[in-house]
Amino acid sequence: MTSISELADVARQLRVDSIRAAAAAGSGHPTSSMSAADLMAVLIGGHFRYDFERPAHPGNDRFILSKGHASPLLYAAYKAAGALTDEELLTFRKEGSRLEGHPTPRALPWVEVATGSLGQGLPVGVGMALSGKRLDRIPYRVWVLCGDSELAEGSVWEAAEHAGYEHLDNLTAIVDVNRLGQRGPTRHEWRLAAYADRFAASGWHVVEIDGHDIDDIGRAYDEAASTAGQPTVILARTLKGKGVAAVEDREGLHGKPLRDPEAAIQELGGVRDVRVEVREPAAARAMHAVRSGHLELPRHEVGDAVATRTAYGQALAALGTARGDVVALDGEVGDSTRAEYFAKEHPDRFFECYIAEQQLVAAAVGLAARGWVPYASTFAAFLTRAHDFVRMAAISGAGINLVGSHAGVAIGQDGPSQMGLEDLAVFRAVHGSTVLYPCDAHQTGRLVAEMAGLEGVRYLRTSRGDTPVIYGPGEEFPVGGSKVLRASDADRLTVVAAGVTVHEALAAAETLDGAGIQVRVIDLYSVKPVDRTTLREAAERTGCLLTVEDHRPEGGIGDAVLDAFTDGRPVPRLVRLAVRRMPGSASPAEQLRAAGIDADSIAAAARLLVEQGVVR
Amino acid sequence: MTSISELADVARQLRVDSIRAAAAAGSGHPTSSMSAADLMAVLIGGHFRYDFERPAHPGNDRFILSKGHASPLLYAAYKAAGALTDEELLTFRKEGSRLEGHPTPRALPWVEVATGSLGQGLPVGVGMALSGKRLDRIPYRVWVLCGDSELAEGSVWEAAEHAGYEHLDNLTAIVDVNRLGQRGPTRHEWRLAAYADRFAASGWHVVEIDGHDIDDIGRAYDEAASTAGQPTVILARTLKGKGVAAVEDREGLHGKPLRDPEAAIQELGGVRDVRVEVREPAAARAMHAVRSGHLELPRHEVGDAVATRTAYGQALAALGTARGDVVALDGEVGDSTRAEYFAKEHPDRFFECYIAEQQLVAAAVGLAARGWVPYASTFAAFLTRAHDFVRMAAISGAGINLVGSHAGVAIGQDGPSQMGLEDLAVFRAVHGSTVLYPCDAHQTGRLVAEMAGLEGVRYLRTSRGDTPVIYGPGEEFPVGGSKVLRASDADRLTVVAAGVTVHEALAAAETLDGAGIQVRVIDLYSVKPVDRTTLREAAERTGCLLTVEDHRPEGGIGDAVLDAFTDGRPVPRLVRLAVRRMPGSASPAEQLRAAGIDADSIAAAARLLVEQGVVR
Repeated sequence: MTSISELADVARQLRVDSIRAAAAAGSGHPTSSMSAADLMAVLIGGHFRYDFERPAHPGNDRFILSKGHASPLLYAAYKAAGALTDEELLTFRKEGSRLEGHPTPRALPWVEVATGSLGQGLPVGVGMALSGKRLDRIPYRVWVLCGDSELAEGSVWEAAEHAGYEHLDNLTAIVDVNRLGQRGPTRHEWRLAAYADRFAASGWHVVEIDGHDIDDIGRAYDEAASTAGQPTVILARTLKGKGVAAVEDREGLHGKPLRDPEAAIQELGGVRDVRVEVREPAAARAMHAVRSGHLELPRHEVGDAVATRTAYGQALAALGTARGDVVALDGEVGDSTRAEYFAKEHPDRFFECYIAEQQLVAAAVGLAARGWVPYASTFAAFLTRAHDFVRMAAISGAGINLVGSHAGVAIGQDGPSQMGLEDLAVFRAVHGSTVLYPCDAHQTGRLVAEMAGLEGVRYLRTSRGDTPVIYGPGEEFPVGGSKVLRASDADRLTVVAAGVTVHEALAAAETLDGAGIQVRVIDLYSVKPVDRTTLREAAERTGCLLTVEDHRPEGGIGDAVLDAFTDGRPVPRLVRLAVRRMPGSASPAEQLRAAGIDADSIAAAARLLVEQGVVR
Repeated sequence: MTSISELADVARQLRVDSIRAAAAAGSGHPTSSMSAADLMAVLIGGHFRYDFERPAHPGNDRFILSKGHASPLLYAAYKAAGALTDEELLTFRKEGSRLEGHPTPRALPWVEVATGSLGQGLPVGVGMALSGKRLDRIPYRVWVLCGDSELAEGSVWEAAEHAGYEHLDNLTAIVDVNRLGQRGPTRHEWRLAAYADRFAASGWHVVEIDGHDIDDIGRAYDEAASTAGQPTVILARTLKGKGVAAVEDREGLHGKPLRDPEAAIQELGGVRDVRVEVREPAAARAMHAVRSGHLELPRHEVGDAVATRTAYGQALAALGTARGDVVALDGEVGDSTRAEYFAKEHPDRFFECYIAEQQLVAAAVGLAARGWVPYASTFAAFLTRAHDFVRMAAISGAGINLVGSHAGVAIGQDGPSQMGLEDLAVFRAVHGSTVLYPCDAHQTGRLVAEMAGLEGVRYLRTSRGDTPVIYGPGEEFPVGGSKVLRASDADRLTVVAAGVTVHEALAAAETLDGAGIQVRVIDLYSVKPVDRTTLREAAERTGCLLTVEDHRPEGGIGDAVLDAFTDGRPVPRLVRLAVRRMPGSASPAEQLRAAGIDADSIAAAARLLVEQGVVR
């Protein structure tokens, strides 16, 4: 064990290096790093167990810098642990550097998850702790260093509830209560009781300490490690900018390099090069890669009426049987999303997150970081609640499957608050995402299985009502593909549909056929990436694309098809049917009609385009 | 005051009418209504002060049904108050009915805000209570009826903190703790202490009662009304489906009409038609419509370097001087968004919401519902945290101004977690929204003033870095318009830009001009609605639109221009430059170059299109 004076020396080095990194960058958050330097020094100098040579070691403790703006402190700690050179430390925030303004696992193997949007570290840490406690059963600890400002985020309290309820005694939150937020004092400043009472109310063990007392800090970490049945929060009273009189506990200095870094470094005793011996992780073996068997997806008769949400639940349960690494998370609507089918067959790998969608997605991110393949589902409308977590998951490069049920006006009577009408726009704009929208049960099953193997954020949109099975059980649905359901040389336009509107489009095509108007019908089940080849061919052959979607006109299928035509080539004529008004309550059929996306509306639009001579 | 036996009678009627409405609809949530019927009966029968003939009466108490799925109870209460006929009650959930599955103010004048996405009623109620307490100084009370399941939402705890800190003793939360969520028991079932401790920790007065004891309920309401300096939460232990043995406290019946409604109505003593005399509101006068003066926007010299975020702060402060109804809300980044300029000049109308973006938007919705014109600002990236609140605000038809700063990769070193790169996609897909994206200080000022008078959700995107002022102070910028900054008969393509890329496009046009290639440049400051006329004319004249945006390729400016061409008319050739990779840290100029959206990239793309013969 490193001595107290040695640890104090490490802390001084972390402060000095934080100041140096920010000075070299000309930006960054040295004062937010300095407040937590003692907390960090004691952690790496005797409590944190980690093999920097083997970041994938299953026994490694996990550290999350939830206050991601204090990245200089993290990088300084990496240097102290011998993982980074001093030279690289000074590349902080420069183009091409691995040391970004806020840490990301894309750049550095020791970073568990991208942070920088506050209030996300603890929620994700709960997911990692769940893995260790309920799945892996490996005795690693999850340490999350939070700021005090971010405790205003509701997501922190969703996480607190989740961790308390699950008795995650392998989780420790360390709160750097430095009293000062970005623009001034926090709501509670140094009133630690305001935080203590809330954590205690959620079942946490609470320790209050002076965050600059090395001895106090060490005892708190020991207490956290020895507390059974409860997560522990360490509320540490600190000074922002601690150690340099010019900036200590002063307002207006957030996110600014020090004016006189040389003097500050002198005040801290000068540049050091102390090396910390980080404790070895416990021997451990990851469990989840082991089991893998044959996938037996449910089969239906063509013509059977099966909701795609039901097909999702069935496929997920089957996938869980075939793959031991698949886990499922629910936002207290598992009976509606059909995630309950998985829960019944694989209760050990099912996580009930209650009505807390941020925690639902965050826990999935944490589980994915530990190697699991999570499927998190709720109503598509309510996934909007977790949008910032999805955005950050994309920055982490997290492999998560999100499934939104109750898409569109087709849900019927429940009305607009329950309708996913913006979800395609949201998920298409997520970097590196995949967006899938099946129309029948077999297609759903295949896509549910397929998405497990993709990179990044995968989104599947399911529908509430029954729709007929139109594909055989052996049909393949590659991501990035589409299905041409009707085509002839006489096609005068192409109807592009997905999900519920595929069935409307097929009915419209039948009606139009009776009136002597042939139309092509494409099932665009892969909304992103989109099947450029098929769309381009349809455009060449028919000259006009009529998109029909149970979604707002912006950002959905109508916009997605454009991806095939934005390289300067000739663009076909475009007409789009989408949900343009605000729905109220009505039956599913009434809703589709009122929105102008039912078979009659599609047929009427096609007829009008023929009459107006828009199509040949 | 109505007697206890009369109130019990009213409660029975509310149960019976909830059952009847759901039975007539064939869907809905009668059991969730029945648990709260006594709470509702006592509220309207002696505590709630409201003039149903004058919903706009400034002295009216405000009631929010946060558990919006219990809408049958709300409509039954309206009937008991004489506001609805029994005939209309039975139109529940039918097409065209005002009685939607979840209540909305679009349909009914007595509904304050749309609910149905759980965990939103209390946050919005805080906004309304702030209005009464800090702005109007009218002694109305805000009553919010919550479910127990929704207390898992972090947003509820952001609201609890906000209300406690602001000492909102005019706010009462009534929690119907019926133990059962949608798919089974809640996390804490009837352990009221789990909720009590958390509310108390946030500074609330807590009352625990039997939610079916009329006397208890009345005393709790009196206690809430007489508690000074603290909001009150009434935790009411109830039975889901109370009063009908077949459904009382049973799982698996959420959101389902009763199997035998006739027998249930018999058990409850049959159909009644009791009328409740609701108490009159106190005499009051709204304050905010009074003051209005001349708007003096700041003036700059053309060529001055001013960040649009700075121009936002300046314009907002000026608007606050001109209009007494303008209020501002900050998510603890007012120094960055420049909302602090407003705070300094109008501290009485400024609300610090700390780092709690859901509460930031919810408070704005609540203030808007009370007649104020709120501007809520934070980083564009962090507004994603409040996406579900924005979605619900659109359903409410709430008039709120949201301003997202730090747009795009142009922020530079801070990296992707801080960059608004999906915001245009998100806000375009919001029903009835307006999306504005200014490129200079004068344009920003005009748009900030203009947006105050619009309907629905208005979004303004601002930039971190300085950009040159290119417009004169007298220039007008109508919403739905655009500016053609360069045009000639020789234009070979049109560059469509907005915000920071306008300046890049102008520089590129200059370079291209030197190479003998003329291009048109459009400043598309109004991203939604989009200027169809100008875009169509540019398409006709130049044949090709090259869009350039500091945003993801999906759902932003590239997709927005299509709105001018989706009626079947010929579509111009389209090329889009957008942020396709995941940025790291780098200087603003390096970021623009790496993303391929700087002047050089635009010029190179234009040259390539000319060389390839894509443009004439």
